[in-house]
Amino acid sequence: MLDHTHDPKRQSFVPSANGHPDFPLQNLPLGVFSPGDGAPRGGVAIGDRILDLPAALATGLFTGEAAKAAEAASGAALNGFLATGAGPRQALRLRLSDLLAQGSPDQDKVEKCLHDAADCTMHLPARIGDYTDFYVGIHHATNVGKQFRPDNPLLPNYKYVPIGYHGRASSIRPSGVPVRRPRGQAKPADAAAPGFGPSQRLDYELELGVWVGPGNDLGEPIRIDEAPSHVGGYCLLNDWSARDIQAWEYQPLGPFLAKNFASTVSAWIVTPEALAPFRIAQPQRPDGDPAPLPYLTDEADRKEGAFDLELEVLLLTPGLREKGLAPHRLAVSNARHMYWTVAQMITHHTSNGCNLQPGDLIGTGTISGPDRESCGSILETTLGGKNPVVLASGEERRFLEDGDEVILRARGRREGYAPIGFGECRAVILPAL
Amino acid sequence: MLDHTHDPKRQSFVPSANGHPDFPLQNLPLGVFSPGDGAPRGGVAIGDRILDLPAALATGLFTGEAAKAAEAASGAALNGFLATGAGPRQALRLRLSDLLAQGSPDQDKVEKCLHDAADCTMHLPARIGDYTDFYVGIHHATNVGKQFRPDNPLLPNYKYVPIGYHGRASSIRPSGVPVRRPRGQAKPADAAAPGFGPSQRLDYELELGVWVGPGNDLGEPIRIDEAPSHVGGYCLLNDWSARDIQAWEYQPLGPFLAKNFASTVSAWIVTPEALAPFRIAQPQRPDGDPAPLPYLTDEADRKEGAFDLELEVLLLTPGLREKGLAPHRLAVSNARHMYWTVAQMITHHTSNGCNLQPGDLIGTGTISGPDRESCGSILETTLGGKNPVVLASGEERRFLEDGDEVILRARGRREGYAPIGFGECRAVILPAL
Repeated sequence: MLDHTHDPKRQSFVPSANGHPDFPLQNLPLGVFSPGDGAPRGGVAIGDRILDLPAALATGLFTGEAAKAAEAASGAALNGFLATGAGPRQALRLRLSDLLAQGSPDQDKVEKCLHDAADCTMHLPARIGDYTDFYVGIHHATNVGKQFRPDNPLLPNYKYVPIGYHGRASSIRPSGVPVRRPRGQAKPADAAAPGFGPSQRLDYELELGVWVGPGNDLGEPIRIDEAPSHVGGYCLLNDWSARDIQAWEYQPLGPFLAKNFASTVSAWIVTPEALAPFRIAQPQRPDGDPAPLPYLTDEADRKEGAFDLELEVLLLTPGLREKGLAPHRLAVSNARHMYWTVAQMITHHTSNGCNLQPGDLIGTGTISGPDRESCGSILETTLGGKNPVVLASGEERRFLEDGDEVILRARGRREGYAPIGFGECRAVILPAL
Repeated sequence: MLDHTHDPKRQSFVPSANGHPDFPLQNLPLGVFSPGDGAPRGGVAIGDRILDLPAALATGLFTGEAAKAAEAASGAALNGFLATGAGPRQALRLRLSDLLAQGSPDQDKVEKCLHDAADCTMHLPARIGDYTDFYVGIHHATNVGKQFRPDNPLLPNYKYVPIGYHGRASSIRPSGVPVRRPRGQAKPADAAAPGFGPSQRLDYELELGVWVGPGNDLGEPIRIDEAPSHVGGYCLLNDWSARDIQAWEYQPLGPFLAKNFASTVSAWIVTPEALAPFRIAQPQRPDGDPAPLPYLTDEADRKEGAFDLELEVLLLTPGLREKGLAPHRLAVSNARHMYWTVAQMITHHTSNGCNLQPGDLIGTGTISGPDRESCGSILETTLGGKNPVVLASGEERRFLEDGDEVILRARGRREGYAPIGFGECRAVILPAL
């Protein structure tokens, strides 16, 4: 047991929270929502309801550090909450866990501050300053490398450098916002010149996202032992990718229009405290792999810097929808397949003095497992479109088609703890203009 | 003559404006400044003085569209001004040109709103949402390509795709803010493994920056004939680069820590109207080059989409400073060496639906000319450090050293028009931590 907020026997007076696959009392993620036609504000997910933080604050349910956190989390963006760091965030968690528990002396007051999630609209939880995407899924890097560079799948820098690049912040949207198929330049291998049109090789990418907490000043690197204190929380991230555009444009400066047309995040910020039960030691590096350089080495990070989180990709096609069939499970992967930890990513990112700011988003890169059933992108699953996926509807998929909806899920499960989830990260593909 | 604001005979009642190399009456760039210990606010450069826009607005000097623009340009960031677009911006220019002209009936009132630039601090002119850097200097792309890929300098996509990538917005600073030498991973060619330490191959990059104006909604591309209306203005941009870090990290996702430790912009937004006299036709593509694809083709853009702007790089070293010698002129280049126009960059950037927002910054990439005297980076000038630059102080430079200051300048000159400049883009290198 980490502390009483993790006690699996604790129940909420909100009935739907007890046994909820994502949002039991042990999770308590924060987000920004609008109830009906109300203004955006901060809230906490509990079962199928949302606690209205400014309303609870106005009712006097928070004091001290918890009030400070609740106030910073009351507006239309949680940047201020992310900036406050671990102390107030943990105080708020302790108080929320008590307020929402069965037998809470404040149940009557709290109930007046609850909304039905079904009647609310979720927004991006923060104004995203910069968005960085890493590439720490080593199976993904190897699988994709084989397709883009058959002779040279994993480049020599991969096991030394947590490879990352900057993505587009302006086109990140919360779960539920449709994604329009991009148009762009592509050049089939047998064509003399590129053409311009709708992407024919549209793909998803299964990633975790990290919401940056306090951050650092320009020129002042974050040491690896300090890195965990700069994580404000986690989400799911679908880094949509147009593989035909990517193949033609990506050299020498990396992916650009192949990615920046849209990225989708799950709407709730799952806190480091909620995920604490699912931390694990870094998987042993395979024999022969170099040790991380000293600036990326930390004993605590080695012992508990990784995560055991089940990650899932589901596909709902027009054919499945029409026949009333369930979404097709495209992949089950796990966050343990990350070659670098979140602390290593943060320390590497700031090692040159680059500043991270509260509300910045860091993606892990696609987290694939070692086999076809655990691939985090359809490019990998179908070997670049060669081996289609066959669905119960009779449809085949080599890449995503218009009307397809991709749903990502993440779940922590560990004996002796309540399972928690991230909520959905989903979006449907609209046809190109 | 484009309109009377471009008339080279027009003089200002501000004596230093007349014949000023950067800020005569014909320029009128906007920026954000603090007078003494005052709060940041919008202003207009005129000679060695700054017109305080909120003060002028309060005095009643603006009405109608000009007042709308002045109000949007009065706060601590010009995003709102950039969002208003060409109509209000042009109205403001017309009014400013009259207010600041010799014989202005409002001279007494205007003079009360002027500050000495020497007593003011300049800030970033806008909150930068996303920063994109292109690669349109074809001589630079070829020179650098030769060093990174001797067998393959200019990749097959270069003449079809305006190559670009996302940079870091959080580490962009205005002219004058020192830059700390980054540390990072690098692997000398003869080393078995990479090391970590201060960059040994620190470089500048001579670029123009484009401030995005109104921008587009996600999913709605900007056609090339509409692209000019989404440009809010221009600046100089130094995209500092650590070549040793870059060489080791850049594959397969592009430059990351080699660039994101700092970028420097000149503080003033030079408007499209001020630059109108210096527009030229796109240089003829060399024989054998493909025509741009239709979405990047526009007759008006072909006829006047390029710029004739002289670009200069100066270097002031500790040795030169100590001996009282002038900065060394490292290069003189010209904006005409861009292979793609700004409109082509904007249209390509949004062709997949990616949204640009007011205050986004777009860099052109390094603009080198065809010879050693016109290289926009020292990597090119010294052939990767092989041929050092020798200075009048007796110092040699293969790459930048601590205490070196790099100064970029841009000037428009054309017969029949007053020359204008961008103001300086300068920063000194501090030693690594």
